[in-house]
Amino acid sequence: MNSFGTHFRVSIFGESHGPQLGVVLDGVPAGIPLTGEDFIADIARRAPGAQGTTPRKESDIPHILSGVYEAHTTGAPLAIVFDNSNTRSGDYSQFAAIPRPGHADYTANEKFRGYQDPRGGGHFSGRLTIGIVAAGVVAKKIASSLTAARFDAQVLSIGGCAERDRWPDLLAAVQQEGDSLGGVVQCRVEGLKPGLGEPFWDSVEALISHAVFSIPGVRGIEFGDGFAASAMKGSEHNDAFTAEGPAKNGAGGVNGGITNGAPLVFRVAFKPTSTIRKEQLTYNFTSGRQEVLSARGRHDACFCLRCPVIVEAMAAIVTADLLLR
Amino acid sequence: MNSFGTHFRVSIFGESHGPQLGVVLDGVPAGIPLTGEDFIADIARRAPGAQGTTPRKESDIPHILSGVYEAHTTGAPLAIVFDNSNTRSGDYSQFAAIPRPGHADYTANEKFRGYQDPRGGGHFSGRLTIGIVAAGVVAKKIASSLTAARFDAQVLSIGGCAERDRWPDLLAAVQQEGDSLGGVVQCRVEGLKPGLGEPFWDSVEALISHAVFSIPGVRGIEFGDGFAASAMKGSEHNDAFTAEGPAKNGAGGVNGGITNGAPLVFRVAFKPTSTIRKEQLTYNFTSGRQEVLSARGRHDACFCLRCPVIVEAMAAIVTADLLLR
Amino acid sequence: MNSFGTHFRVSIFGESHGPQLGVVLDGVPAGIPLTGEDFIADIARRAPGAQGTTPRKESDIPHILSGVYEAHTTGAPLAIVFDNSNTRSGDYSQFAAIPRPGHADYTANEKFRGYQDPRGGGHFSGRLTIGIVAAGVVAKKIASSLTAARFDAQVLSIGGCAERDRWPDLLAAVQQEGDSLGGVVQCRVEGLKPGLGEPFWDSVEALISHAVFSIPGVRGIEFGDGFAASAMKGSEHNDAFTAEGPAKNGAGGVNGGITNGAPLVFRVAFKPTSTIRKEQLTYNFTSGRQEVLSARGRHDACFCLRCPVIVEAMAAIVTADLLLR
Amino acid sequence: MNSFGTHFRVSIFGESHGPQLGVVLDGVPAGIPLTGEDFIADIARRAPGAQGTTPRKESDIPHILSGVYEAHTTGAPLAIVFDNSNTRSGDYSQFAAIPRPGHADYTANEKFRGYQDPRGGGHFSGRLTIGIVAAGVVAKKIASSLTAARFDAQVLSIGGCAERDRWPDLLAAVQQEGDSLGGVVQCRVEGLKPGLGEPFWDSVEALISHAVFSIPGVRGIEFGDGFAASAMKGSEHNDAFTAEGPAKNGAGGVNGGITNGAPLVFRVAFKPTSTIRKEQLTYNFTSGRQEVLSARGRHDACFCLRCPVIVEAMAAIVTADLLLR
Repeated sequence: MNSFGTHFRVSIFGESHGPQLGVVLDGVPAGIPLTGEDFIADIARRAPGAQGTTPRKESDIPHILSGVYEAHTTGAPLAIVFDNSNTRSGDYSQFAAIPRPGHADYTANEKFRGYQDPRGGGHFSGRLTIGIVAAGVVAKKIASSLTAARFDAQVLSIGGCAERDRWPDLLAAVQQEGDSLGGVVQCRVEGLKPGLGEPFWDSVEALISHAVFSIPGVRGIEFGDGFAASAMKGSEHNDAFTAEGPAKNGAGGVNGGITNGAPLVFRVAFKPTSTIRKEQLTYNFTSGRQEVLSARGRHDACFCLRCPVIVEAMAAIVTADLLLR
Repeated sequence: MNSFGTHFRVSIFGESHGPQLGVVLDGVPAGIPLTGEDFIADIARRAPGAQGTTPRKESDIPHILSGVYEAHTTGAPLAIVFDNSNTRSGDYSQFAAIPRPGHADYTANEKFRGYQDPRGGGHFSGRLTIGIVAAGVVAKKIASSLTAARFDAQVLSIGGCAERDRWPDLLAAVQQEGDSLGGVVQCRVEGLKPGLGEPFWDSVEALISHAVFSIPGVRGIEFGDGFAASAMKGSEHNDAFTAEGPAKNGAGGVNGGITNGAPLVFRVAFKPTSTIRKEQLTYNFTSGRQEVLSARGRHDACFCLRCPVIVEAMAAIVTADLLLR
Repeated sequence: MNSFGTHFRVSIFGESHGPQLGVVLDGVPAGIPLTGEDFIADIARRAPGAQGTTPRKESDIPHILSGVYEAHTTGAPLAIVFDNSNTRSGDYSQFAAIPRPGHADYTANEKFRGYQDPRGGGHFSGRLTIGIVAAGVVAKKIASSLTAARFDAQVLSIGGCAERDRWPDLLAAVQQEGDSLGGVVQCRVEGLKPGLGEPFWDSVEALISHAVFSIPGVRGIEFGDGFAASAMKGSEHNDAFTAEGPAKNGAGGVNGGITNGAPLVFRVAFKPTSTIRKEQLTYNFTSGRQEVLSARGRHDACFCLRCPVIVEAMAAIVTADLLLR
Repeated sequence: MNSFGTHFRVSIFGESHGPQLGVVLDGVPAGIPLTGEDFIADIARRAPGAQGTTPRKESDIPHILSGVYEAHTTGAPLAIVFDNSNTRSGDYSQFAAIPRPGHADYTANEKFRGYQDPRGGGHFSGRLTIGIVAAGVVAKKIASSLTAARFDAQVLSIGGCAERDRWPDLLAAVQQEGDSLGGVVQCRVEGLKPGLGEPFWDSVEALISHAVFSIPGVRGIEFGDGFAASAMKGSEHNDAFTAEGPAKNGAGGVNGGITNGAPLVFRVAFKPTSTIRKEQLTYNFTSGRQEVLSARGRHDACFCLRCPVIVEAMAAIVTADLLLR
């Protein structure tokens, strides 16, 4: 279903090349100051234009249809929509019969029996994450009205390389080859009080991973010491409490699924962009033969670069939901 | 909240040292053959007794209170309870003031203001996963009544070591030191048809990670190539479709959040057992000083060894829920 | 929250005088033929203009933002919005301090601490039911794609009078007095197979009454023999099964919360329109005194006359949800 | 599904003649004093034994399996079970082929394809309402910990007769005839502050009617003036606010779906008991012929007499859920 959250609920709708897409936000408390201006900074962080990102540009102006009156939330649902103005649908017609490796072309066709909107990835497009960023802006406002939460996500590595000054060369190289890169994003949430999260099913990690795996292209998530913890002894991984909280935060701010007051820390692995110009094999379901595909259209060489604000938004959505319980 | 799932819903209740604990399963179709015998094999896989596991033994006989009549499910909710017979509550009294590092002692106390049941970890105990295993047995029956799904999880490594014949020595060593080990479990689900999973929020990965992070002690999860994908190029990670499905299954059986017919493959990182005999620092919230703690009680040196059947159960719970949509 | 339904889910947003209002529909199967034309007939049945209804007229054209491609549903969420073009917000400013008897002015102000949108009733306006009618159109399409369901609701009485040819005189009289009338709507759903409805909580009556009491102005609901059954003996109320189903349908098509194959029959009591020109007492929360209020603005003398299509829509929404389980 | 509520969630399970039945309660705040003694008074009000009620007697002792420690709630889910000790299953075998008019025999068989537990009505039995009464006890404790809510339900009439001193004769007469009576229960909730209830879908009336129609045998519900309001003019039905709240409470304590501070008042119509000794026609699905049925077994001549505490419980369940939002 298109909804997430029990107390702060985010419902998402739209397609990459439809007239408008957006979100409906339910459970927003009345009286939070909010205008269109509040969305500008985060939406700009998601926008393309930097090296390694797609040249498709949208105006990305949020239209608030409901739930705000005299620059404050009313307590009624917020509907926020965005126009899709800069679409070139002709680019996508070939993928119905010849699905792009790594993309949802094949699985969407199987699930929706050919009725899905194929243009630009349709409902599976990364374009839908603009609604998530908008939801994140509202969620951050809710969180900061209730506690001192601060959300900060950064790209940690791209193509396995953590040295930031080598990234321009890496990107230039893959773009020339018509190839793409993945990356890792780390998110820190500071200022959370102990006690957020619910046993048994709604632990902080369970809710955040649920939200984060809804972002297209995520392959893994880990909290605190993460996969490295599986190779540690208990005496290494355990974290002595001190008067200031856990000493080294190897649990990433969560014990037993509940925040312990230390910063919440998690990392997200993004795959490389699936759509590449470089020739790759795929299968033609009409002819029943393998074929070589060179995908055209405008795409990010490393879409992970645009994702920190989306990961932050997901962390904020979960935090707002838990704070409102 | 204590429930998970929309069409096959698992509600869990109980504490480690209460009289009984269990699950209520809703959405089970009528007419599935089911008796107490069906639970024996999976419950035995979770039971302690092997090297590296706790000596606490329970009879672990499932009492089916409702939802089964003449050895078939009726379509009404199934309640299944287990007795807690072998409890030694005295072991746990010290942890109220002096929380064990890595455990929920501190966060539970903060969240429930001192009213939580502290005996044996209370509602946070790994003991509750017996209800998950029971739910998994029913979920596997539902799944196999609808499709040819087969679930198989195995320990891939403990303490970072993937060589199985070195494990007995590793375990003997940490047990002698009073320490503990983590590990990695890999799960494969074969026989799923293309089309399971729901955009936007209920992708297969989102639901499985939500369920898996509800297991106590999980630190990370990854699908297919996982974190390694973040260091690959698109031309490396992408998977050519063939007449038999994806060539190398780097996506772990899922594209765009929806199964593609290839085996679903994911790995789960478990931390080392938190409660260790070896001395470790902790904080005495009464005295306001750091103290040395040597935890007694019966515990697994490597609880990950008992977890494959729990991970399988979570995969089956999600699969049954998606199949019933 | 703003959502209803588990398999066919209706989320509603908007205010009477905001720029747009609408619904998001989730769980719509792929492949159902649908265009803007399909909405015209039902929207017209809700439109004002007949005797006893408000002179406010809107164009009421549905804008389908998502979920439809090449005139068929895609399986992704449908967002449908309507413009609010014909608003006269000045009419409503006085009700902040002096709430209209019978209206939500006072309770909305208490709940949302003065932040609610007061214009035209804001989120509490009957205007929002246009989204319900649109959802009902889609629900009827889903229902008729799965079974032979036919929905039919009619006004049974207004002002306690069941004789239809006396209604014009009744309406003319109350309009002249500046007063208003209530009424009763009866809904029949034919063509439902036995077996719809879920024990324990989601009986057909429970879900329909939940949906129907979401329509502003409903005071009661009864199924089959309804309140009259409470004065019958078992031998009178019981319904002999025959080869064609229940003999007299005193249970209104439902036994034990589950459809029995006979027509589903229920009646809904609507109160008279609260906003009347005739002078009535109210309370001035600023001065702390009772005052006489004569409400202006454009209102229905008997809004019940516009409600059959809304009641039908609610029955269809519940039916579609149950059919998709 | 077997669950109701979003913040205080009641899950119900069991059958009339299974070993045990019960409820799981989720969302109960930590620290509420609670012991088995607290259940005695309300359970006794539901118990049979008075004139017009079934001679089947159960010990009805609540077994609290979880969620309570040292006589206080812990914040973890409460599971409460009851034994079914006094069962005579032989009485029910004939109803598989020859369904009792008015009962769920036929619809349950259609829905669950013959796999339902037929003994004593199985999962459809009024026996399950003992779990509701237990949930109501906890809900009343939650409500009274948060506000001054008082719940009071009474039988208003039986067999259409509101004169209480004529009831013994009425009951004696129908019992002699082997027939049964329906009745009306009125419930008042006092002490609710203004502001409870949620637009659009979760109005107070919508949630209460959803819960109340889950009680077996309900035919109708109305709030405040109820069906009578449909025959009133606006000037009659409207309620002038005064310094003490609405003057006559014709809205039953709710405006726009939100409590206004006046007592919440609603009435529930119960049908007469379906199972009667008096001969009635039914249909033999095996022979395809109508037959005369004289039902044996132990049944209430007027089960409505045992229902006030169940209606109260439903009102308390909804109130607790809304108070916890």
